[in-house]
Amino acid sequence: MINIYIPALQTSAGEKAARYIDTLTKPIGSLGRLEEIAVELAAMTGEVFPTVTPPGVLVFAGDHGIVKEGVSAYPQDVTAQMALNFLQGGAAINVFSQQIDAQFKLIDIGIASDLSHKDLVQRKVKLGTASFYKEDAMTRSEAELAVQVGYEEAEELIAQGIKCLILGEMGIGNTTSSTAILAVLTGEKVSKLAGMGTGISDEQLRHKVNVIEEALQNRHINPQDPIDIISKIGGLEIAGMTGAMLAAAAHRIPILVDGFICTVAALLATEINTQARDYMFASHESVEQGHACAMKLLGKKPLLNLNLRLGEGSGAAVTFPLLHSASLMIANMATFESAGVSEKE
Amino acid sequence: MINIYIPALQTSAGEKAARYIDTLTKPIGSLGRLEEIAVELAAMTGEVFPTVTPPGVLVFAGDHGIVKEGVSAYPQDVTAQMALNFLQGGAAINVFSQQIDAQFKLIDIGIASDLSHKDLVQRKVKLGTASFYKEDAMTRSEAELAVQVGYEEAEELIAQGIKCLILGEMGIGNTTSSTAILAVLTGEKVSKLAGMGTGISDEQLRHKVNVIEEALQNRHINPQDPIDIISKIGGLEIAGMTGAMLAAAAHRIPILVDGFICTVAALLATEINTQARDYMFASHESVEQGHACAMKLLGKKPLLNLNLRLGEGSGAAVTFPLLHSASLMIANMATFESAGVSEKE
Repeated sequence: MINIYIPALQTSAGEKAARYIDTLTKPIGSLGRLEEIAVELAAMTGEVFPTVTPPGVLVFAGDHGIVKEGVSAYPQDVTAQMALNFLQGGAAINVFSQQIDAQFKLIDIGIASDLSHKDLVQRKVKLGTASFYKEDAMTRSEAELAVQVGYEEAEELIAQGIKCLILGEMGIGNTTSSTAILAVLTGEKVSKLAGMGTGISDEQLRHKVNVIEEALQNRHINPQDPIDIISKIGGLEIAGMTGAMLAAAAHRIPILVDGFICTVAALLATEINTQARDYMFASHESVEQGHACAMKLLGKKPLLNLNLRLGEGSGAAVTFPLLHSASLMIANMATFESAGVSEKE
Repeated sequence: MINIYIPALQTSAGEKAARYIDTLTKPIGSLGRLEEIAVELAAMTGEVFPTVTPPGVLVFAGDHGIVKEGVSAYPQDVTAQMALNFLQGGAAINVFSQQIDAQFKLIDIGIASDLSHKDLVQRKVKLGTASFYKEDAMTRSEAELAVQVGYEEAEELIAQGIKCLILGEMGIGNTTSSTAILAVLTGEKVSKLAGMGTGISDEQLRHKVNVIEEALQNRHINPQDPIDIISKIGGLEIAGMTGAMLAAAAHRIPILVDGFICTVAALLATEINTQARDYMFASHESVEQGHACAMKLLGKKPLLNLNLRLGEGSGAAVTFPLLHSASLMIANMATFESAGVSEKE
């Protein structure tokens, strides 16, 4: 699992795309970041005229034992309840997935209860993680399996023809796990990274910080070993997203990274294979406290800033039309020559 | 023309929408600006579940006598050439209009040459403006007629069923006219407002500033009279956009304002009737120098920041999917009650 081959970017395709964009009927550079996106897409896919449709949306759901320590605004049952909501098409990510004609798949990678529905992909690694305040979240082999599940599920969607991958998650308690992971990866203070999650009070936030700080002291994590991080303080759905991103990168499929939790999963993917980063776009600037720090470490500049903090992949889905615009621009605009338009004097 | 009735926002519909959004299956406020957009759309349209599809894209093309003074990077012929490109579907705004399934219409409101094409709407007020460096750009009655043409063309699209209006423009030299208008409206120094347009050198920019400064001294404009501003230093396509926005506001149709030139047209619309502003969204933060100042005066916060500076309505079209996301969110998401999801503890 850990030794994944990710091809280098095809910079020559990107350069060709950049030169071609300069022949299109518009002042040079006047489409700003859309032009940059088109060039990046070309380098990722190796196609001067890259396509991004149809996109695929892969949502991983898993529970977190850490919610027993009172770190979340919502009860654990909400993970399963929201999973059903996803399956019935009522969640934000369903609405936005439909808007962009995405293939949508929900994976039960670790919900704490048994759930069955014809459209639910059953890949449960365990019935939720253990509370990492008291013990390791999962075993090392469970962590590896969760990454593997994500990898396989993304490969299946890719085999079905998706051209861009959006990752989402559902898991009450997962900002706590993500904050702990980010603290390990950055060495930053937990109090600088912890945020309101689904909406806790200031007092609950102080408690959340204390829980994470004590947990980190007790878990003895090797910050150089991403699987050690996942097994000790991670989440199953976070590991699933990490694996899925590695698969997308291995297949030259552009990845739209969502908010805080997804960005932490992206960081774990780059810890496993640094080239995974080359295939990622940062979709939006979340208002969740730690996101800016995570994004800085990932080294990407978000495309949108709409004060989102929902997760589920919703922000990435909302960002997708920009990638689509960029790909349509290069594919369908006329050139100065083809349109018979005079160039700059 | 000047006395247009624009209805007040239906704030009660907005408030109902806001309350309803808080029942949807997501943490309160977690969809950030998308929630604000949905509430604004509800207040504009008077519908708690507002629709924005299909959008309409109305592009006005007109020429500027001021290009004789050497203020633009491109020759005047490019206006007509690009108009043909629009009619053949090769411009950026065509590509993005198709992406959002918009009804697209191109109006010749003042191209300096005669152009004919089955899809071109012929509403030429005159063969381009006069150079406002030397004389008034047009007569007062021509200015009024250009606003009227825009109003009528928007009304026609609205009668055809469009639910959101995007305005675009084509007119070599129109950043010069827009900069002059903005200087009159704000009292700011021209040197603070003038930008690179389609791409001029620093030396050409200094020349552009001088031309505008001298022209403004000679035109004796009444800054309280928007029709005086348009007739003395305006553009026919700018006036057309102004009229179209007034029509949209009069019919409770949300308006997506594009970049610098379109924002100046929006300011003229609010000078004619201040309530027009209530029906506008600012789509993006252009890199054209004066745009931030124009946007500040309009009192709107742009939704995107992608370093665009093309015009044509392209930035507004690229922004449209966000309005669509907001309207789909409120229409199609499940509530906590309907989905059987537990609320915050």
